[in-house]
Amino acid sequence: MSERIELLIELAELGAIGRKREVTLRELASRLNTSPQSILRLLREMEREGLISRETSGRKTRLGLTEKGLEILEELHERLEKALYCGLIIGEVVSGLGEGSYYVRLYRDRIREYLGFDPFPGTLNVKVLFPRTIFDALIDVRPILIPGFVRDGRTFGDVKAYPVRVEDVEGAIVVPSRSVHPPKIAEIIAPVNLRETLNLRDGSRIRIKAVGGR
Amino acid sequence: MSERIELLIELAELGAIGRKREVTLRELASRLNTSPQSILRLLREMEREGLISRETSGRKTRLGLTEKGLEILEELHERLEKALYCGLIIGEVVSGLGEGSYYVRLYRDRIREYLGFDPFPGTLNVKVLFPRTIFDALIDVRPILIPGFVRDGRTFGDVKAYPVRVEDVEGAIVVPSRSVHPPKIAEIIAPVNLRETLNLRDGSRIRIKAVGGR
Repeated sequence: MSERIELLIELAELGAIGRKREVTLRELASRLNTSPQSILRLLREMEREGLISRETSGRKTRLGLTEKGLEILEELHERLEKALYCGLIIGEVVSGLGEGSYYVRLYRDRIREYLGFDPFPGTLNVKVLFPRTIFDALIDVRPILIPGFVRDGRTFGDVKAYPVRVEDVEGAIVVPSRSVHPPKIAEIIAPVNLRETLNLRDGSRIRIKAVGGR
Repeated sequence: MSERIELLIELAELGAIGRKREVTLRELASRLNTSPQSILRLLREMEREGLISRETSGRKTRLGLTEKGLEILEELHERLEKALYCGLIIGEVVSGLGEGSYYVRLYRDRIREYLGFDPFPGTLNVKVLFPRTIFDALIDVRPILIPGFVRDGRTFGDVKAYPVRVEDVEGAIVVPSRSVHPPKIAEIIAPVNLRETLNLRDGSRIRIKAVGGR
């Protein structure tokens, strides 16, 4: 990373947002893996460029991010957010416990009604490799809520369905509404047998893209 | 920014996550503001370092981020997120419409019960300068829900209260639960008259820090 960005991030981490914080050049230098002399030169340049505000008295230096400096970090954050978390999930096909088929049959009519397709009776289980959880990828995607029901005295809960495309096939990631832990396994339903259609086996890498979202 | 990070971001933006994308060296060079020769050298180094995967056939180059390259971007994103959006709000004191006082009186008993202090009958209105909305700052802060009520046939809705510290004084940002637009004005209640206690006037810059959160 450039020294400028690195220094701006260090200052933000030191709490120098909206106020100045006392720092020692030696400490900044060691954090940036350079010399106090280089840091002093860098600080002067960045002050001239309007990225930081600086106050010295004796041997003490107080530094703060300016609005311009803060904006640079906000823009970098936003650029990374858009590039990384845009509804894309990379995963590896794994074997399920066979329960998927049971549930897909149970919710079949509702899936037809709410998602508009007749689901293949089974789910494709995908271990999520990127991002850390499926919710990081789906944060801007509005799920379709498939309402739960009671059958034979047993309650089956609401399910959230996130429309996705697996390679070229449309389907949906399904997550029980009640679930509180971000799943590390994405369960995917589709109108076809995804394993056969896409010629997948355990360990195959796949790319899942949310449909919709901002 | 360093050329390496810049190139990794460009590749993420081109969709080279979980797959390779065809690029031209000329295009990459112009995006990074350098020469095709320098890009070629950079790509070779980054491939050796395990940051990107590369495939060439004839004049065509296909590039993808490796897991290691992707991790570097994820870590940078997370570092920025933590440094920037940690419950801190910078704002500028503005005049309210005088409605605050009316509502604080109405909710007074509930504020005492749910927030544990007797509120000064008035709110401090703060125009949010950083981050873009108060919710960017409060994303990890769990609000206290002050339940609404009906009085004289009129319904007063639930209010979300986010405990904060304004300089050294404890108070809370209050937001109607129903509100859908992220407010650009933070309304703050406290046990004291914040304007007097902190010697604030319109235009004063203040620093608000959420209490709690991760």
